[in-house]
Amino acid sequence: MTSARPFNFAPGPATLPEPVLRQVAAEMLDWHGSGMSVMEMSHRGKEFGAILEAAERDLRELLAVPANFRILFMQGGGLGENAIVPLNLSRGGKVDVVVTGSWSRKSAAEARRYADVQIAADIGKGYAIPRDWALRDDAAYVHLCTNETIDGVEFHDLPQLTSGVPLVIDVSSHLLSRTIDWSRVGLAFGGAQKNIGPAGMTLVFVREDLLGHALDICPSAFNYETVAANHSMYNTPPTFAIYVAGLVFQWVKALEYGGKHGLAAVEQRNIDKAALLYGALDASGLYENRVDPSCRSRMNVPFLLRDERLNESFLTQAKAAGLLALKGHKSVGGMRASIYNAMPLEGVQALVGFLKDFEARHG
Amino acid sequence: MTSARPFNFAPGPATLPEPVLRQVAAEMLDWHGSGMSVMEMSHRGKEFGAILEAAERDLRELLAVPANFRILFMQGGGLGENAIVPLNLSRGGKVDVVVTGSWSRKSAAEARRYADVQIAADIGKGYAIPRDWALRDDAAYVHLCTNETIDGVEFHDLPQLTSGVPLVIDVSSHLLSRTIDWSRVGLAFGGAQKNIGPAGMTLVFVREDLLGHALDICPSAFNYETVAANHSMYNTPPTFAIYVAGLVFQWVKALEYGGKHGLAAVEQRNIDKAALLYGALDASGLYENRVDPSCRSRMNVPFLLRDERLNESFLTQAKAAGLLALKGHKSVGGMRASIYNAMPLEGVQALVGFLKDFEARHG
Repeated sequence: MTSARPFNFAPGPATLPEPVLRQVAAEMLDWHGSGMSVMEMSHRGKEFGAILEAAERDLRELLAVPANFRILFMQGGGLGENAIVPLNLSRGGKVDVVVTGSWSRKSAAEARRYADVQIAADIGKGYAIPRDWALRDDAAYVHLCTNETIDGVEFHDLPQLTSGVPLVIDVSSHLLSRTIDWSRVGLAFGGAQKNIGPAGMTLVFVREDLLGHALDICPSAFNYETVAANHSMYNTPPTFAIYVAGLVFQWVKALEYGGKHGLAAVEQRNIDKAALLYGALDASGLYENRVDPSCRSRMNVPFLLRDERLNESFLTQAKAAGLLALKGHKSVGGMRASIYNAMPLEGVQALVGFLKDFEARHG
Repeated sequence: MTSARPFNFAPGPATLPEPVLRQVAAEMLDWHGSGMSVMEMSHRGKEFGAILEAAERDLRELLAVPANFRILFMQGGGLGENAIVPLNLSRGGKVDVVVTGSWSRKSAAEARRYADVQIAADIGKGYAIPRDWALRDDAAYVHLCTNETIDGVEFHDLPQLTSGVPLVIDVSSHLLSRTIDWSRVGLAFGGAQKNIGPAGMTLVFVREDLLGHALDICPSAFNYETVAANHSMYNTPPTFAIYVAGLVFQWVKALEYGGKHGLAAVEQRNIDKAALLYGALDASGLYENRVDPSCRSRMNVPFLLRDERLNESFLTQAKAAGLLALKGHKSVGGMRASIYNAMPLEGVQALVGFLKDFEARHG
């Protein structure tokens, strides 16, 4: 079974490290001699308490999260969090959003329910992050989506906001794929179902001085101050997702690549995987990625076939070659290869081999 | 391993059927030849689509949910849903809440953020559901928690509201343990982590005429009309939890007990388990359950030791006897045995045997 699993390029939920899946299966009926599956454990028991504590500690270490940031394991996903952030941080005031694709556009729409939202910049139908942003010095925060899953646009450097306005970053689809410069961030959040674990959990990293300003209409389950004060246990957290995430964190910590280890190894491997794939696309006469090289995503690589009539046979033959879920998002069409942390270099090599082979036969 | 697993009386997350756990483990690396774990599947793919469709169909069949009710698989848990219900149904108007314990009290607090909430009746420190309710004919809905997990109070019959005001029932801790009289219900909701599956999912059953009245401040991820229109796929649903729930539904459908099968078998087994345990408590000089027999919960059985100094040794010895998680909720103290669907009769028999043995030695 080990080497027989196909390579899964799904955008999320997405491929997970095989050793993690094996451990989850092995511990399913009896976690560490407790006589229970993690799914069956009371979240208030000492067993689950140890799981949550280890997961938070490992995540903090991996991402070098400063002591003045709280890490919250929340129920739900990115779309809900797009409302929960302004419920907690907007104070009903001004929010500036930099639109770089589909997700930041959705974030702006949700924030409008609670705040005076201004689009500070908009990528529109372009393929490069706009340079000039119309920011307001009295905004409650500035929102960026630092990796647009659908559009394949990634910020490789975070802006340094001179105004002192907190930066909120939606890191859903590249969380744990690279380091984060926390000195430039007020809050970061991400759904789990890309690099972390099962869908239904969101991780929130919030600077302590931003807590305590939720609107009265914010449900208590979604109030960051309440969740933080109760160490993500105000209500029942998504226990099984936290457990899987904890195993993924351990897997990242143990990863070795290119003479590096841990998150640095993951990041270097992601850089190499992306370079290999973009290089193959750019060298081809059949495939095309239009995103400006300055902001191409290392995680999500959308590409078009110049002859769209080949789309169906491309997908059929890819699947037969053990390359799954390459169909692009319906809003942009074409193909998309999501190459998250758990996608090995061999998966990208296999994809590149297939791209060349298919082009030779059909290009 | 099969017979060696201890009996887990946790209140939720809680024990799950062992055959379900075994199947989840067996399918962890490759669901039905797909080459993927369910955790790794795109929610938009045909594989997960089939899982969701089967789960909804089986649940609708098991609970005989009428065609004019929509079933929603939502992210999150009961506490969040306590806010999401009034965001969708209150229209900013009046909400009447019947308080029968800790959970309905929490529901009232959340609803107050959005509506004019009146406590129609309050069990206070008593042990019987109040008979007289001060209901308003122009309320948007009446809220009941039909099984109070902490207090062990259950409605065995739903009221017939003559006013035509919709009844909203929080069925979190007895969902799928018995039939529901849908003719008396406008909306039912329940967190999954008792009888259904992993924490982080909430099931909502909503009558179609109640859709479409959400407040403007309702996040789109939590708007029932939006979720219903997109068949629980407006955003990424908690895919793995839905998969486990689907296996639990199949397990319930296949259950045979006392000449009955399916939900009827589960319900009869629950009746027998509860009768056995309450009978043992009532016959004892050491243990005491104070809830009025008319509203004792079949799912959650709190009890006190008349000599509280024995609490610690009771718990220690119970654990040594393979009886886990019997400690009561901190707000009421004492013990609590949660005997959900997946707790076999043998588990309750073992508990009753231990109760008698412990009393004989310490009573």
